[in-house]
Formats: sequence, C-alpha cells, structure tokens
Amino acid sequence: MSVLIVGSTALDSIKTPHAENPRLLGGSASYAAVAASFFSPVKLVGVVGEDFPQRYVQLYRRHRIDLTGLQRLPGKTFHWSGEYEANMNRRRTLLTELGVFETFTPTLPAAHQGAQFVLLANIAPSLQHHVLEQMQRPRFVAADTMDLWLNVALPDLLKLVKRLDLFVLNDSEAQQLTRQDNLLAALARLHRLGPKRVIIKLGSHGSILSGPRGLFLCPAYPLPKVVDPTGAGDSFVGGLMGYLAAKGSVAGHIRRAMIYGSVVASFCCEGFGLTRTDRITRRQIEARVRELERMIRTS
Amino acid sequence: MSVLIVGSTALDSIKTPHAENPRLLGGSASYAAVAASFFSPVKLVGVVGEDFPQRYVQLYRRHRIDLTGLQRLPGKTFHWSGEYEANMNRRRTLLTELGVFETFTPTLPAAHQGAQFVLLANIAPSLQHHVLEQMQRPRFVAADTMDLWLNVALPDLLKLVKRLDLFVLNDSEAQQLTRQDNLLAALARLHRLGPKRVIIKLGSHGSILSGPRGLFLCPAYPLPKVVDPTGAGDSFVGGLMGYLAAKGSVAGHIRRAMIYGSVVASFCCEGFGLTRTDRITRRQIEARVRELERMIRTS
Repeated sequence: MSVLIVGSTALDSIKTPHAENPRLLGGSASYAAVAASFFSPVKLVGVVGEDFPQRYVQLYRRHRIDLTGLQRLPGKTFHWSGEYEANMNRRRTLLTELGVFETFTPTLPAAHQGAQFVLLANIAPSLQHHVLEQMQRPRFVAADTMDLWLNVALPDLLKLVKRLDLFVLNDSEAQQLTRQDNLLAALARLHRLGPKRVIIKLGSHGSILSGPRGLFLCPAYPLPKVVDPTGAGDSFVGGLMGYLAAKGSVAGHIRRAMIYGSVVASFCCEGFGLTRTDRITRRQIEARVRELERMIRTS
Repeated sequence: MSVLIVGSTALDSIKTPHAENPRLLGGSASYAAVAASFFSPVKLVGVVGEDFPQRYVQLYRRHRIDLTGLQRLPGKTFHWSGEYEANMNRRRTLLTELGVFETFTPTLPAAHQGAQFVLLANIAPSLQHHVLEQMQRPRFVAADTMDLWLNVALPDLLKLVKRLDLFVLNDSEAQQLTRQDNLLAALARLHRLGPKRVIIKLGSHGSILSGPRGLFLCPAYPLPKVVDPTGAGDSFVGGLMGYLAAKGSVAGHIRRAMIYGSVVASFCCEGFGLTRTDRITRRQIEARVRELERMIRTS
C-alpha cells in the first residue's frame, strides 16, 4: 500500500561547528517521504517556489515519489536556516522565510483522496486538518508536530489530535503540552486528547510508544559520529509509516516499524540534510535493523 | 556464590520539593548490598561510627548481609546531605561530614579474601585498590566511581581501572574522563584504560554495555513517579553483581543481570533512601523484569 505524506518542503541552510551547507533539500515532508520510500510507494503533498532546484525534483523521483500533489507556485521556496552547538543537542533558528508557504492550501488530487495510510508531517495544524477533510476513509492517520504550533496554534492542534490514530511529538513538546515532566504521566494525558497510540521521541535516547499493547521502548541506533541531526525525527516517522503501509496493517507491526524508523533516522544523521539518506540501500537498512535488534536482545 | 561489596556506609539527609528526610541509611555499599541480597549472599565491607542506629544494622541483617567486614569506629558515621530540584534530574550537595571515613582503611576478614565476585562500589579509588590488594584470585571485579574522584584522585582511579573486569560510570563522568561527548567514542577510550566490559549509566534513559559481544542497550523501567533517585545507580550495579554471582559466571548472563539491576533501581526510586527497596520481594522483581522485557520486545 502507498502512504500519503503532507508537510513542509523547504530549502535548509545548516551550520554546524564543522561545516556550513546552504540551501539543502529539507522540510518535514521531504525527510519523511524519502524515508518512507524505502518501504512503500509515496505520494507527496507540498509546495515549492520557482527557485526550487531541479536536482531536488530528481532526488524525489529517484525514490519513485509521486509528485502529483507537489504544487509549484510563483515566489520563493520556504527557507529555513539554523545553527547547531558543539554537542548537536541544541540548535537555534537563524532565519525563517515562509515564501510560498505563506498562502499555501494543500489541495489533494482526486487520486490521493482514497489513501489508506496518511502521515501529516510537521506543518501548521490547520493545514494538516485541511488535508484530513479531503480524505475519504483513511485507515491510519499519524501526525507529527513542533513546539511552534503549541505556542501559536494550540486550538487547531487540539482539534486535529482528536482525529489521529497516532500522535508523534518529542519530549519537550509533550511536557509543554501536558505540563507533566514525567513521561508516563504525559502519555496518559496525551491519550486523553484522542489518539489510541502516542509516540514520544527522545532524540538520541530513542522513543517510547504507548498503545493498546502497552509500552514499547524503542532504542536509537547508536552512532559514532553525528554530522547533522536535522530531519532525524521526520525520517523516523516517515520510515515508520512507510513500513506500516507496506505491511498494510498496524497492530503486530508498529514496534518493528519503529525500529526501521530509528534505523533510517540514524542514516539521516550521518550526512547533511538528505545527502546520506539519499544513498541508503534497503540491504544497508536490513543490516542495521539486525544489528540494533541484537543490541536489545537480553539473552 | 556470594558477592563481596565494599563502599561507603552513610547517613543521608535528603531534601526533595515534596519532603525532607534526615539520617536515612545510605552510602554506595548499603544500596548495592541490599540490591544484591535479593539474588545471592552478600559480604559487606565498610565503616560506621558510634552513632550508627541499631535499626540499620537490623535492616542489613534482614537481608542476610554478612557484617563481619563492617567496622564500627569511635566517632561519627559519614553524613551526606543533598537537595533535589523539581524534576529530580539535578541535585546539589548541602553538606558532607566524613566522620570515621576520614581515617578508614578497609581490612578484609580472612573469610572474605577468597571471594569470587567483587563490587568496589563508589569510595576513594585508593581504598578500592587497597581492597583488591587483599584479595586472592577474584573471578570478576567491578567498580563504580563518581565525578569527585576524577577531580581529586585521577591517578589512583586510572591505576584501579586497569585491574577491573567491569567499569561502571555515568555519562557525564565518562565524558569528563575521556573528553568525548559521543558515547561510542567514550566507550572506546574507556576500554583502552583496561576493562573488557564497560557500562555507561544514563539515568532514566537506562544504560549501555560495551563488551565482547558488542553493545547492549539496557532500558530503565519507566516509573509514573520518582520519589527519590538517591542510590539508584548503586542499586543497579548491586543488583547486577548479585545476579551474576548467583549465576556463577558472566558471559551469557550480564545482559539479563543489567535488566535485574534496572528493575531493583526502579524500586529504589519509589521511596526515600532504602525504604522501598527494603520491602521488595523476589516475586515483585520477577514481575517487573517480565514487564520490562515485554517493553523491549519488537514482535
């Protein structure tokens, strides 16, 4: 089965203590779509401007991503610029130019409206909601978010969360949204907002799923060196949704889907932007999944 | 098999945002010994002063801890006082009174010198070393440490680490000792100091073992509420060593030993000092181990 992914499509200028890379392909939907593409066909919904480089269209195409839903509008592509500190755990935004995103309303091509697996990657919750309104009867809807929307669009976000099967957010967002420092307390509150399944991402410490079968503590694949963590969270959820869509069902598969998501996210961190992810083979993913599963085996 | 545990025996006055508890039984050896006692017989080596309450001697005895090596000297018991911040992740020391620890030299009773499993719980590295010097041919020697010794007794610590089979420390200590932010890079440096096995403790994120069979990512048991994290690390390593001593060998058992250590540490955090740990049953431990193993199963 294919997975429909809506979110931001951007140009990212990323600075780390070791290097500076201008105008890389970025945005939540780009990371998630490429990550998902290793497991199932992907339909991308987003918007770019006239300055969007043709080589990035080719990158999407290399991963057989359906671009019918990618609008190209007059104006500039969304541009984000950020800088990481030495230990890569903190970053600060240097610049955000919304460009064509300022007036964007995602309109689903007819062929997309029947999609069964839907990932609403990070983007304004009103837009995520607008996409859902156009869907027929999706089987499994997941959404990711970011702290910005907790601050400027909380009512929209809460309205969206009610309709989700899976809500994904990171630990600081979960704490901000629930006012609970404790992870289990935060998870309990998040379920009360609607979703049957919630995943809290913990960066290099992995993630935790709360669902009908209880908790799953998903490890991160440990890396000897992190080059650029941008997009790791989007890659995680993209890989996860691609894997689930390939299986065609959720129960019994979501734990391993998280392991696959973790592994794709680990590759993502090994290069700037999507440069490393672009070159992964399915064989490399499988090898790392086996390795990670060995690292959590107790006997 | 029994496990010999040497370390500090103390009275702890602990303040959290919710409560204040003066003169609880504390010290690395106390936590580790009680934790180990659920799995194998324990021989404790330490020192207390004339003010050491009889009820704490009874607590040790309840757990069938051999106190032949516990000296009682004229003077006061080591007293530590600390305060936790709201999220329990940071604490500051309010007071340290060394008391009888100032002049303590651990002398092993003859019956202790042949012990096969030895845990050098946190204490000055010169004292840890002095204990090793009195041992005949221990099969497996583990040691824990703390940041203080990195600052004031680094040469002693490095001399000790050379002789260890297992070195246990937390992430910030590992970073300070190796000057590596990255966990895998730090582990590689720590092996070069001598030990074949190294465990880095990550607090509520669990721990990571590096050994002949590669890495093991050990989860922490997630708690809905942390009352007092004092002694959790000592309980982890105590439970681990008690479990290994019970099995009588290390390879093939150390991963599950870490799971058991994690579980005992989780109980420790649910009460002040040793109050919760004192009341655990082996049955409760087994139930939580099964639960934790379910939380890391991928299928």
